[in-house]
Amino acid sequence: MTTRLEGKPVADRLKQELGEQVLHWKSIGIEPRMVTLLIGNDKASEVYAMQKARTARRLGIQFEISRLPEDSSQANVSARVRELSEDVSIHGIMLELPLPGAIDSQSVVSTIHALKDVDGMSPCHSFARPSPDAALYPATPLACIRLLKHYGYELRGRDVTVVGCGQTVGLPLIHLLISEGATVVACHEYTEDVRAHLQRSEFAFVAVGKGGLIKPDMVHDGLVVVDVGISQGPDGEVIGDLSPDAAPLTGAYTPTPGGIGAVTTLQIFANLMHAMDMQYAAGMIQV
Amino acid sequence: MTTRLEGKPVADRLKQELGEQVLHWKSIGIEPRMVTLLIGNDKASEVYAMQKARTARRLGIQFEISRLPEDSSQANVSARVRELSEDVSIHGIMLELPLPGAIDSQSVVSTIHALKDVDGMSPCHSFARPSPDAALYPATPLACIRLLKHYGYELRGRDVTVVGCGQTVGLPLIHLLISEGATVVACHEYTEDVRAHLQRSEFAFVAVGKGGLIKPDMVHDGLVVVDVGISQGPDGEVIGDLSPDAAPLTGAYTPTPGGIGAVTTLQIFANLMHAMDMQYAAGMIQV
Repeated sequence: MTTRLEGKPVADRLKQELGEQVLHWKSIGIEPRMVTLLIGNDKASEVYAMQKARTARRLGIQFEISRLPEDSSQANVSARVRELSEDVSIHGIMLELPLPGAIDSQSVVSTIHALKDVDGMSPCHSFARPSPDAALYPATPLACIRLLKHYGYELRGRDVTVVGCGQTVGLPLIHLLISEGATVVACHEYTEDVRAHLQRSEFAFVAVGKGGLIKPDMVHDGLVVVDVGISQGPDGEVIGDLSPDAAPLTGAYTPTPGGIGAVTTLQIFANLMHAMDMQYAAGMIQV
Repeated sequence: MTTRLEGKPVADRLKQELGEQVLHWKSIGIEPRMVTLLIGNDKASEVYAMQKARTARRLGIQFEISRLPEDSSQANVSARVRELSEDVSIHGIMLELPLPGAIDSQSVVSTIHALKDVDGMSPCHSFARPSPDAALYPATPLACIRLLKHYGYELRGRDVTVVGCGQTVGLPLIHLLISEGATVVACHEYTEDVRAHLQRSEFAFVAVGKGGLIKPDMVHDGLVVVDVGISQGPDGEVIGDLSPDAAPLTGAYTPTPGGIGAVTTLQIFANLMHAMDMQYAAGMIQV
């Protein structure tokens, strides 16, 4: 029997926890407030920003979209980020990526105040800490771990394969998995036999973004697949890296859509709560 | 036939390259200068600092040991680091670890100017960059890669096991190996069957610090073992993680002593040269 690991129950539980934390802040006179910076007219970025705004509203978190025109200079964007970083009433700052052409996103990201960097994008966070508790990690890998824990999976001592070692998901995920005590195999474009590694693994995290990459002959019924990849199918529909005919041959898998995505959106606000705790500890939030 | 991968030829080649780079800086009127901070009376730290001083002298690099007493406060140590960071005549700063009791080394390390942090210890460096060229990495993992390349090994697409996922060697090594295109298996204390992973690998990097951890039945004659572990044997001698009776059963291995250690000492100065290039690009060195 293959289990579908739906994101919704995980998201619902998290929503409830976040609601309580927001209430706690409000009860001591602090309004949690987050800003996402949207530069130019990228349609997908617009959609993501609106999605976050809707989620924030439901959670009782103030959320603003700060807009800058398509032709903004790097200096303008950095100046805006610095302004937001210095504003004591703002607790979380995000940047909708990709940025328009000439702007170097890594350089802009690094001007976000480290304790307000709710997507864990700044070089001072991502993979630098021995313990994830001391830093803000990107939301997607955190959402993967959260989903598995919700469903009662234990990672310590387990054999795990990560397919795709990108900066936003794969690399920070490898760190999180090691800190959870998993034995991690890191596969990527140069890996000769991904199939062999998956055959020997109990968990697979796939974050490549190539629809249907993971074929039926690569999986087995003892494998739990967390599918992070998102791409467009032939009819414009959203598809994952796990091919639909491979899914029923796994032990369990996260569906796409309906899997990690829903958890990730909320994880950003869990990061905001974590960021606010750190800001409070650092004396940046005065009650 | 098992090959001993001696560190000395690698160190000799690097010494020559560094000598030329030092001469180049001197020819344009810049004296490469590095300081290591030695706090308290730790005997081993004293030995390491003197070793570096000797190597620096041979390379024509100015090297100073900046001392602070055992009972220095965190504020005192941080103030000294900040002073050194601001001194334009100093191009590299190191901290001899461990620091005495109450001082939080991570917090002190993070006050080192990022472009002078020649041991790549600052959280802004270690694992944050997609490309190692854009950052300073800890010397030991860089020395491992350098040694293998010196002996003509190619890592792209190869199956590699890292045993030990510590902050100074294992974790940054995993990043470097992924960026070299290796498929990396990360093993550690919770890994149930290190032997099985080694059996399937072509390269092993062992950085645990438990003398003789890697036993004869764990290796095979197609395995290249890079032994980073250092501990003391029963008679006080320096021993590696690869047990002496396992070494002849590998395809190739780095001896201890005489392997990675000699390369690591020089790699610190290779990092100094890399740091100076970055400082020059950032306008911090005026010719």
